Amino acid sequence: MNATRDHCLELDASDLLSPLRAQFELPAGVIYLDGNSLGVLPKAAGSRVQQVIEHEWGRELIRSWNSAGWIDMPQRVGDKIATLVGAGPGELVVADSTSVNLYKVLSAALAITRAGAPERVRIVSERSNFPTDLYIAESLARERGFELILAEADDIASLLDERVAVLMLTHVNYRTGRMHEMGALTRAAHAAGALTVWDLAHSAGAVPVDLKGADADFAVGCGYKYLNGGPGAPAFAWVHPRHADRFWQPLSGWMGHAAPFDFSPHYRPAAGVARYLCGTPAVLSLAALECGVDTVLAAEPLGGIEALRRKSLALSRLYTELVEARCAGHGLSLVTPRDDAVRGSQICFARDEGAYAIVQALIARGVIGDFRAPDILRFGFTPLYTRFVDVWDAVEHLLQVLESGQWREARFNRRATVT
Amino acid sequence: MNATRDHCLELDASDLLSPLRAQFELPAGVIYLDGNSLGVLPKAAGSRVQQVIEHEWGRELIRSWNSAGWIDMPQRVGDKIATLVGAGPGELVVADSTSVNLYKVLSAALAITRAGAPERVRIVSERSNFPTDLYIAESLARERGFELILAEADDIASLLDERVAVLMLTHVNYRTGRMHEMGALTRAAHAAGALTVWDLAHSAGAVPVDLKGADADFAVGCGYKYLNGGPGAPAFAWVHPRHADRFWQPLSGWMGHAAPFDFSPHYRPAAGVARYLCGTPAVLSLAALECGVDTVLAAEPLGGIEALRRKSLALSRLYTELVEARCAGHGLSLVTPRDDAVRGSQICFARDEGAYAIVQALIARGVIGDFRAPDILRFGFTPLYTRFVDVWDAVEHLLQVLESGQWREARFNRRATVT
Repeated sequence: MNATRDHCLELDASDLLSPLRAQFELPAGVIYLDGNSLGVLPKAAGSRVQQVIEHEWGRELIRSWNSAGWIDMPQRVGDKIATLVGAGPGELVVADSTSVNLYKVLSAALAITRAGAPERVRIVSERSNFPTDLYIAESLARERGFELILAEADDIASLLDERVAVLMLTHVNYRTGRMHEMGALTRAAHAAGALTVWDLAHSAGAVPVDLKGADADFAVGCGYKYLNGGPGAPAFAWVHPRHADRFWQPLSGWMGHAAPFDFSPHYRPAAGVARYLCGTPAVLSLAALECGVDTVLAAEPLGGIEALRRKSLALSRLYTELVEARCAGHGLSLVTPRDDAVRGSQICFARDEGAYAIVQALIARGVIGDFRAPDILRFGFTPLYTRFVDVWDAVEHLLQVLESGQWREARFNRRATVT
Repeated sequence: MNATRDHCLELDASDLLSPLRAQFELPAGVIYLDGNSLGVLPKAAGSRVQQVIEHEWGRELIRSWNSAGWIDMPQRVGDKIATLVGAGPGELVVADSTSVNLYKVLSAALAITRAGAPERVRIVSERSNFPTDLYIAESLARERGFELILAEADDIASLLDERVAVLMLTHVNYRTGRMHEMGALTRAAHAAGALTVWDLAHSAGAVPVDLKGADADFAVGCGYKYLNGGPGAPAFAWVHPRHADRFWQPLSGWMGHAAPFDFSPHYRPAAGVARYLCGTPAVLSLAALECGVDTVLAAEPLGGIEALRRKSLALSRLYTELVEARCAGHGLSLVTPRDDAVRGSQICFARDEGAYAIVQALIARGVIGDFRAPDILRFGFTPLYTRFVDVWDAVEHLLQVLESGQWREARFNRRATVT
């Protein structure tokens, strides 16, 4: 490991993606390694939301549903996100939260398998999948008479048999940063007669995703992480066209109706993925999300998601190497895979003692990562705005916190409600 | 009917609520009678949302979940709305859309009755209830083996018998403006052994609602109508404390977990109504909604919702009288009840021919109401910002449109996608 801070500065100077950083408001004195929890503010978002508020809402009022295209926002922003995840136009909609969308698509997947293969009663997922995914699956399993089977990542493929209705996975694990092989696992699930539901919360905008190429069945994803859509941004749902018209998803609100403004008393689902809409679109949040998605699309002329991926891997590789070289002997053990092929855009270390306090001590120094219970220090690398020199400086701060024992101070050991 | 425009100006001059209008951005040249579809922009909303974007998101980033209280917004804004609908603190949360919240509370109501009285298989509602309510009920009825029975408003009470699990009604009908007697119908439902679910979309902020006084069981409502929360604002859910801990609602996302940041793989519902939360709160939209709710709370020192109600009834009564006197012979027939006790905050007329085109011709003149299929001209009266002189001028425009036959022009007869 021969890297120096100057070497990192040289890497930044020769980084063709470096102009993309100018799209963001980055607070002075902060090294932000938490874009996998909440992406930073795109400069365009403030004025765009203000335009929606002052002009579209304030002046045009109800007319903006047509004149400003509010009614089409779920599809318009959805089509943009589709280009980042290997989906076609008209196949993906923005709506609701990831949890709510997961309920819709998992309901659909379970109904489709139940109709064709009622003997299949298992939903298979990863034990350390993000909790909200497991809670929604637990709910549907209880309600519909399925069984939720949780396994370690390495054991999942071996569970795919004739008892499985649906394989439900988050593509990149929120705790470990490990990325599942979507194509291989989807093939294995299909070979066993099961359908797949993929959560792209830590993938969309961060790693190349090819839903159609992988022949996936259903997907959902989050707007406020690598898509930079703002706190609690709307989420998305994708359904493979072969399934889109097969099932009336249970959250059958008026925006998913074939003719919502006929005000018919009976539900008739819209054609295609539009039936996965439910209530009235959250216009302000959608406007901010669109700005966030545009920051990722701005990478297109510079090599797009493939170029972002190369930089992301270089950043996370550098971070790992620097921590392991410079912070050796301080009890950090790498949780995230070293293998580029199965690593997402984050690096996690476990530490037996003080993981929470160390993260707090880093935050106090302006290095923002996060803690994930019980023992994980998590650092996300968003290639749109993270520099190689940020990686160097973040490791320097980590070393200082560890060497000084600063994290043992009482003020860093309060357990906050949100970390 | 001896009213004149000068008389209306005098009514405005002596209106103690008139200062409340200054809270809003009202575009010049517009008479806005569509606050029951999308409330107007509160002046405070633009700068508040900008503060959330630039400071809380832009500078504080992920830390704002704690430092700016983002994580508590569903409860904080919920407690404010609670004061407008006769609910107590900690009983009401803001989340998701009205449709999604209805799915949660109707699921709970059905599960509770099924557990105690499995022979009850009917959901009773009004045939002209807002479609999304009917679609969600239709979905749950199909899924859980219930039967959705739709009736005319006058026939509902007679349907409440030992077959009924849930009476689900929108308190003020979106098409007719008729208001159900919440107390009497709830008593009748309970006497028959059924639970009640009330949709307050056209009530919250417009008419006095007393959920606890009426002994109601569940309620949902909309943030973007009389609460002025902005296009697609989050909605709310209320559960009577006697039911709040009884049922694990199916959209059991992480925000409804007893300890979301423990990241436990198994769902354990939070105590009380917090379990009706699901995904991550939509912070930008919640911030705008809070400004809207505050515009209604600002009426407190002036007599609160009771004073707003008196003005609303005076406005709608004046509008009805003026239309019937001045536009007589033009084929408009009143759909909304004359009786103050059962009238919400809107006036609807039916017309055999041209209802859509007349609304469009009015909009072209800056008088914004809306059309509801197939034959309804709908005009909402938001007492926070509507003046008596607006009522006079709106009727004058209506008269001119009718007398001139202007609405027969081709440009008014296109059928828009959203009206």
